Formats: sequence, structure tokens, C-alpha cells
Amino acid sequence: MASHGFWSLGGENAGANTGSQSPSTPRAWCQAAAQKLSGGIGSKLCALLNVGEGEKPAEPAAMQPPQTAAGSCGCNKSCTCTKGTDVGFSDLYSTDLLPAMDGDTKTMTFLQEVVDILMAYIVESFDRETKVIDFHYPNELLQLNNWELQDEPATLDDILISCRATLKYAIKTAHPRYFNQLSTGLDMVGLAADWLTSTANTNMFTYEVAPVFVLLEYVTLKKMREIIGWADGRGDGIFSPGGAISNMYAMLLARFKMFPEVKEKGMSSVPKLVAFTSEHSHFSIKKGAAALGIGTESVICIKADECGKLIPADLERRILEAKHKGAWGGSLLMSRRHRWKLDGVERANSVTWNPHKMMSVPLQCSALLVREEGLMQSCNQMHACYLFQQDKQYDLSYDTGDKALQCGRHVDIFKLWLMWRAKGTIGFEAQIDKCLELSEYLYNKIKDREGYQMVFDGKPQHTNVCFWYLPPGIRYMEDKEEKKKRLHKVAPVIKARMMEYGTTMVSYQPQGDKVNFFRMVISNPAATFEDIDFLIEEIERLGHDL
Amino acid sequence: MASHGFWSLGGENAGANTGSQSPSTPRAWCQAAAQKLSGGIGSKLCALLNVGEGEKPAEPAAMQPPQTAAGSCGCNKSCTCTKGTDVGFSDLYSTDLLPAMDGDTKTMTFLQEVVDILMAYIVESFDRETKVIDFHYPNELLQLNNWELQDEPATLDDILISCRATLKYAIKTAHPRYFNQLSTGLDMVGLAADWLTSTANTNMFTYEVAPVFVLLEYVTLKKMREIIGWADGRGDGIFSPGGAISNMYAMLLARFKMFPEVKEKGMSSVPKLVAFTSEHSHFSIKKGAAALGIGTESVICIKADECGKLIPADLERRILEAKHKGAWGGSLLMSRRHRWKLDGVERANSVTWNPHKMMSVPLQCSALLVREEGLMQSCNQMHACYLFQQDKQYDLSYDTGDKALQCGRHVDIFKLWLMWRAKGTIGFEAQIDKCLELSEYLYNKIKDREGYQMVFDGKPQHTNVCFWYLPPGIRYMEDKEEKKKRLHKVAPVIKARMMEYGTTMVSYQPQGDKVNFFRMVISNPAATFEDIDFLIEEIERLGHDL
Repeated sequence: MASHGFWSLGGENAGANTGSQSPSTPRAWCQAAAQKLSGGIGSKLCALLNVGEGEKPAEPAAMQPPQTAAGSCGCNKSCTCTKGTDVGFSDLYSTDLLPAMDGDTKTMTFLQEVVDILMAYIVESFDRETKVIDFHYPNELLQLNNWELQDEPATLDDILISCRATLKYAIKTAHPRYFNQLSTGLDMVGLAADWLTSTANTNMFTYEVAPVFVLLEYVTLKKMREIIGWADGRGDGIFSPGGAISNMYAMLLARFKMFPEVKEKGMSSVPKLVAFTSEHSHFSIKKGAAALGIGTESVICIKADECGKLIPADLERRILEAKHKGAWGGSLLMSRRHRWKLDGVERANSVTWNPHKMMSVPLQCSALLVREEGLMQSCNQMHACYLFQQDKQYDLSYDTGDKALQCGRHVDIFKLWLMWRAKGTIGFEAQIDKCLELSEYLYNKIKDREGYQMVFDGKPQHTNVCFWYLPPGIRYMEDKEEKKKRLHKVAPVIKARMMEYGTTMVSYQPQGDKVNFFRMVISNPAATFEDIDFLIEEIERLGHDL
Repeated sequence: MASHGFWSLGGENAGANTGSQSPSTPRAWCQAAAQKLSGGIGSKLCALLNVGEGEKPAEPAAMQPPQTAAGSCGCNKSCTCTKGTDVGFSDLYSTDLLPAMDGDTKTMTFLQEVVDILMAYIVESFDRETKVIDFHYPNELLQLNNWELQDEPATLDDILISCRATLKYAIKTAHPRYFNQLSTGLDMVGLAADWLTSTANTNMFTYEVAPVFVLLEYVTLKKMREIIGWADGRGDGIFSPGGAISNMYAMLLARFKMFPEVKEKGMSSVPKLVAFTSEHSHFSIKKGAAALGIGTESVICIKADECGKLIPADLERRILEAKHKGAWGGSLLMSRRHRWKLDGVERANSVTWNPHKMMSVPLQCSALLVREEGLMQSCNQMHACYLFQQDKQYDLSYDTGDKALQCGRHVDIFKLWLMWRAKGTIGFEAQIDKCLELSEYLYNKIKDREGYQMVFDGKPQHTNVCFWYLPPGIRYMEDKEEKKKRLHKVAPVIKARMMEYGTTMVSYQPQGDKVNFFRMVISNPAATFEDIDFLIEEIERLGHDL
């Protein structure tokens, strides 16, 4: 492997070590972790994350498990756990693992090693002392490791090194100060469920190959429809690969509902269609219109008010608003305090609800809920006889595959179901209420603070808080055009510096005639009031000189 | 939790215990596993899989770790590993796990418990002595456990029980005798990579949030294009949620290439379009045509010969054939012995290649490779300014999100990349060659065997082997119509019996005027010649009396 000190503990990107707000070095993190965790776990974690082939840890003393008579597993000499069993990964290849003869022990030892790496990464990710990101430019990152694919197999040792390298440069999406996207945070039950899903490695198209998962999808979709407010939870639905595809499914169904002949005869058989949506709606509506042959020019954007909301002048607009909000606000339905913001959603014919956003279900988990039963099947079915045999021994309504455009469909349900089970409905409610509380806190904190300006008037109804930070040098400028021009460059520079330092991440964007502003979306369940304070201080620290 | 002996070790579905071919009871499996694996691992595995709340294992002696002075982890008293640390899951809830204060140890202990359950499941799955499936009808399965979602949270103990229940009734897709779908088998490196992917929990839309994964996708797509035969691996591509969506992307691109105005102006701006495809092509082509507004009636199906192949009369047909085969044959490109079967594929403008099929990458992993650079971006981009800011600090060509219809895109690349690394190109080649060898073995074994009849003439070119089994009572019938009618019912009954016994699974289907036949597709890397022998014997055992 790499001979360029790839795994050095201190060193590169030393810039991260300036200022009291910036994270400490990995070495210091190791020492802290070793003290914090009992039974030498901290030291072990640290060794797992940082020690690569041919490289000795910088402070061997700190890496030693506390026992003097330690075995290779880090437990006592005579321990029988599989960790550190005498398996030398440098002589082993993937072909030595199951289904190889007598591959059981080697397999378990290998998987345990991977899990140990993952656990160390998880614990580190939640620690505010670590960086959110160890940023490198693409060309730089390409050089930092040999990522190329070879004809010859690599040893399992190399595979473990690749796993560590991948995590070293990954974004710590679980970090309490990672605010960059709606899908932030890492739920431990959701993660466990996702590991189980990977292990079960099956497909959602028929009950035959995924009996439990199909039932759990059935149970969960029904519950979601009840929450939307459809009588007895009746209706239909499906989990799909992301909100954009869910939205496209909804458009497909709407078109089919009005013009069923479009399925066989195509768009030339129907009048010219248009779609109404908010001018602030998600771009997936336009993508869907392009794909479906409606054309983006036939997407009519309805004006939104200063707060970014459609004016609910009439029922039709309210339905449109609910659909628009449905692109990521579905989770508000879980909150008794906030669900009024989606009043009327039960009158929609379909709702896209993305539990991988505010509900923090691991990626991906998006549902399309449909009021009319049977419509999805009629719209999308092609009766592939090799998958959906009609002479099977069980109730065929559980073969959901023909409702989708997809053939194979990933199991996205288990992580949501298991998390729901673990939290209960009230647990999700508490999580969502907390996100809204945090965004209100942020809003209250900056609305009158010097150097800040809100993009929209009034208290945000959701967890988006959009604001400008005006560094002192810009704050008092008189030339409005020049001020705007300079302000436009502030957010990108602060964001780039955040990534260099790796301390936090938050998104920015321009919109219409509004120059680049920060677009804070709070959905990270690990975030606290202190993390919001930190964000403000960090923006000021990094933007003060601009 | 359930008080109806849900976790009983022997008991229910005793039918599975008849005949020497059927799997032994879980209890017997435990005993065998305990003897087979060193260090008491077998006993522990078994206990993990079978012991539920309030239920004692049937044979406590076999469950004891071999050490007399064992701690709760099953290791020695003074061991410091996290297993069995004094964490009582019946008092803990998901809110006690990270990001909760001091949640580190509880989290690691919980995740370790889940991993132990998964490891036990993995080892069991590869054991031919276990059942492929513990089949229950949907209504029965709904009764077997309380799957409902509640308002109140469940304890972590309940969560672990749910995990065990889910696996108990899941299909063992890794089982050497599971032949039901193309996506069978469970690769250990692929699984490790999927666990890591879940842990990293990020999105593919920008380099910013997934730097390593975006680079690995770049490296891998380039390698795949080289293998297809495009000069210097140039071109474009994307991983998408399954082959059907990849195919739809390809159709979308083809339409955009010929009529770029369709994106803005819709289908009404272009002449009536038709699509040519094989009469045996995957149903996703028709689904795509319906969704895109072409209409299924405008899909013109080209006749195929007796072997199910298009007659390669001219170049155009050869390209169409490659596209058709491209629905699951892409992996043949990895085999020097078999890649000639896809000769001409390099002349296609786009290729769908599903590594989750013959290459056994965990679900889902599907790539669309595109010859022309830039086309995907022009076709699908909507310039969402909140995601794809143009003033970022790094090279924006690594922000791949706007090439897709999706907004968020799951990380499907890491499992393929890590497996490729582990096996090398030659490892994939060996795996694919072996599948083809097994299918040839099956073909040679049954082609002249009494009671069998091949559906298509000649040796299959791929791993599909389609055949009828004629039980003695049907074999010599003179009335051709009656014979056909009876034969049509044979495969469904044998399949239902396979699922009842849980010994193996293979698919069946009718096609045109051909009545139900078995459609064996070999892609399971765990399968051996003996498993093929077993399948034949099992078909005869279960179908003999029909």
C-alpha cells in the first residue's frame, strides 16, 4: 500500500488546528477517547481508525490496551471472542471467506474487523472534537490513495485499509455540526436496520422473495395514510428511490388517472397537458415533466409570497401547496404542534413523504402515498409473467412489484419500521418538535443580531432559516449594488473555509434576485442549542475579514 | 412481546422434517454448529438466533460456552470486550443511544448485539442443512408477531427480538440452493462495503457530501466503459436504482439525442416516436415507453428465434440485441471466454449493466453507461441552485447529481468498488465462468434424462436453463392438449412444495404458447455441482406424484 505516510496521525491540513473552535488533532482525540471510555475501548477505537500497514502510531503508549497481558484482540490472553483470532488478513483473499469451505471463522473475524472500524467511526462522528470533514480537492484526493481497479485480487488487509481510507475522507454526516443537507444525522436503530437489510440482501418485487419486508411495508404505508387522514388508512403507496422519483410517480399517476389511454397510446393521444406548481417547488417536478413528455415549458409556476409560500387563495392552491410542501415537509404530520401547517393534505390525491429527511431514517427512504386503491397497479403494471405468476399459492396482492416503474426495488422499509418501533410515534414527534425548536432558537438569536439579515419576513414555519451574514466591511456600505455584489461572494467563501477547517457545514444558495444566502435546514437529531451557537460564532470567525 | 412460543426451537412446520433431503431441525443444526466451530462460536451463534424473551433454549447444555468460568459475553470472566457488557436492553430505549450523553458504550454494545445476530444468520445461511425459507402465508405471517407500529417506544430488547423475527422469516438469499432470482448469493466483501455505506449515510448528488464515493464512481464507470470497448474509457454514466430505471434513462437519452426540444416542449413537439425491442426484452422497456409518453403500443417487438435470440441479420438488429441482452448480460463482458456473445456492444450508444446480478454485488447496483459525454447532463439538468452552486471552490464536474432524474441518489458504488478490489477483474471472471459452467452442467445432465424436456433447442448461451419436468403420470400421455394442460400445473405445485419444505427455490413461468416451465438462472456464487444434483433430485422427489 501507500508509502507516503497516508495514515499519519498528526500532520497534513494542520490549518485545522488554529483557533479554539477548531477540532483537536486526531492524536488528542485518541487520548481523550482513551480516558473517556472504560475498558480500553477508546484506545482500541483509536487504533482501529488510525493505524495502517507499516505505520506505527505516534504515541504507542496511548494505543496500548490497559491490560499488560493482552491478547491480539485487546481482551485478556485467554479470551475466546472472535476478535483478533489468529487470522492474518495479509495472506487472505475474499475467496477464503464464505462460501469457501471452512470459511466461517475467517468470515466472522473479517466482518468483526470491519464492524470495529465502523464503530470507531460512529463514536468519533458524534464527538464534537472531531472534524466534520477532512476536505481535499478532487485531484488531490485522487492522488492520496491508489483507488484504481486491478486485474489481480487484493488481500483482505488491503480491503480493510480501503475501508479506513474511505471513512477518513468521508463526510461525518452524523456529526452534530453537519447541517449541510436535510438528510443529516445517523440514527442507531436505523443503522442497525440497514445492516440487517444489507445482510438479508433481497428485493421488494414479490412476497415470495421478501415476505417480512413486504408485510412491513404494508403495515407502515397504512399507518402513514392514517396519519395523512385518509379514512381507515385506505389507499395505496410504495417506497421509491428518493423524493424526486416519488414525485414523478405521482405525476405519472395523475396523468394516467385523467387519461388512461396515455399508457398504450402515448402523449400524442391526449390534449396538451400542463402542470401547476409553486415557483419554489422542488426541481423534480420539472425533471418529471421533461421525462414524461409534458415538457418543462408546460410547467406553470404559481407565484409565492415573501415568505416563500403560495398564497392559499383557494382550495386548488392549497392542494398545490400541500403537494409542494410534500417534497420534504411530510414529517410535520408526525407533530401535533405543527401538523396544522399541512392542513388540507388529506384532500390531496397523492402525497410524497420522505422519512429520510426530518425523520432521519438512513438514506434512502421515500414513500409515495396514493388515495385511490388500484391506480398504481393499473398505471404501471406490465404483467411480466416470469415475476408475477398468477398461479402462485399465496395472496397475490402482496406482490407489489408491478406498481412501480422499477423491476427490482431496494428494501427501504425495514429501517423506517424498526426506528418507528423503537421511538414510537411520540418519539418521532419529539424529534421533529426539537428540530423546529432549534430553528426558532436560531431565528430568535440572529433576527436582531448585528450583521445578520433575514431573507424572508417573519418566523419560519419550517426548519429552513434563510439569512445573510454581512461582515463588518460590507455592513455599512452605501452603494447598494456594490454591497449586493460583495455580499453575493460572502457565503461561498465562508462555506469553503468551513470545509477547509472541517468544523461545520451549512448550505447556501441564491434565489431569483436574492444574492447568495445561508440556507440552514435543521434535521440533525444530534444538534443542540450549543451547536447553533457554535454555527453563529463560526460564521463570524470565518467571515469577519471579508 | 409474543407469548405464543414464537421462538420455539423445534415444532412448527414439522413437514420440513420428512425425507433425507430435507433440512434438519434448528436444534440439530445448533448441535452440528456447536461441534463444527471452534471456541464455542457455534453454540453462541445458535443461542443468538434462537433464544427470545422468556423462552429457554430446548437444550441448555448445548448452548453453554465451553468455558465453565464464562462471563456474560461468552468469553472468560476478565475479558474486556464489549460483548455482554452490563447493559440490560430491557430497560433501554433508542434515546439512550448516541447522540445521547455517554451513549458510546451502550451504542457499541447494542450494535455488537445486532452484528452477532447477523453473523449467526450469515453462517446459518450458507449451511446446506438449513432451510432456504420458513414459509408462511401472508395472513399467517401477520399473526405470527405483533408487527404494528405504536405511539409508545419499544425497548431495545424488543428491537433485537424484531430483528431476529425478521430474519427468521426472511429468505436466506445467500443459501447455496436459492436459485429463485438472478440476484442471489451474498458476497462478504460486498456486505462489508454495504455496512460501511449505511454507516457513512450520505448522498451521491455532489462531491461536497460524498467526495470519496463520487471519485470511486468515476473510477469504476471509466473501467466499465473500457471493458465495453469505448476508446480510452471515455463517455459518461451513472449508477441508478435498478436495471429498469437504467433502461428508462437510456430511452430518455436516446429521445433527447434525436429531439432535444422534447425536454422543454414535450412530446407534442416531436413526431410520433416508436421503439424497437426484442419480443423477449425486459418489461422495463414497455414501462419506460409508457412513462415517457411514447405509449406501449409504439413499442415494436422484433421476433426472436427458437433459442430466444434475435436473428442478427444486420447491424441494427445486433445493436438491438445487445441492448436487450444488456438488461442482465453485461457481466459476460468480464469473461474472456464468453464476452464474444456480446460482440458489437461497443457500437451501442448506451449500455445498462447490472452488477447486482451475475456479479453478485448486494442489491441494488445498476449502471447506465453512455458513449457520448455531456448528453446525460444536458438531458436531465435543471440547475437547482441550492444544490449545484456554480461558485464552489472545487471542480464542479464532480457534482454528478444533475445527470439523474433523481435528486438524492443512494451510494451504490462502494460495494462494487470494494468487491472489484478484493477479487480483481480475474476474480469476477472466474465467478462468471463458474456460473456458466454450472448451467452447462445442468443442461448436460437433464437434456437426455428421462422426464425432462428442454424449452429451447441447443446449449444455452447464458445461465438461463429452461426446462419442463414431466412426472411419470404425464410423461406418456397421448392426448397432447390434456398433457399440456396438466404439465402447466406441474411447476407451480413443485415450486409451492419447495417453499413449504424450504429446501430450494427456483423460478418458473409460461411464455407465449409454452406452458409453465422451470427457468433456472445460475448466479449464486455459493452453488456447486452437488447443488445442481440436489435441485434435480428435489424436483423429482416433489413432483413424482403429480
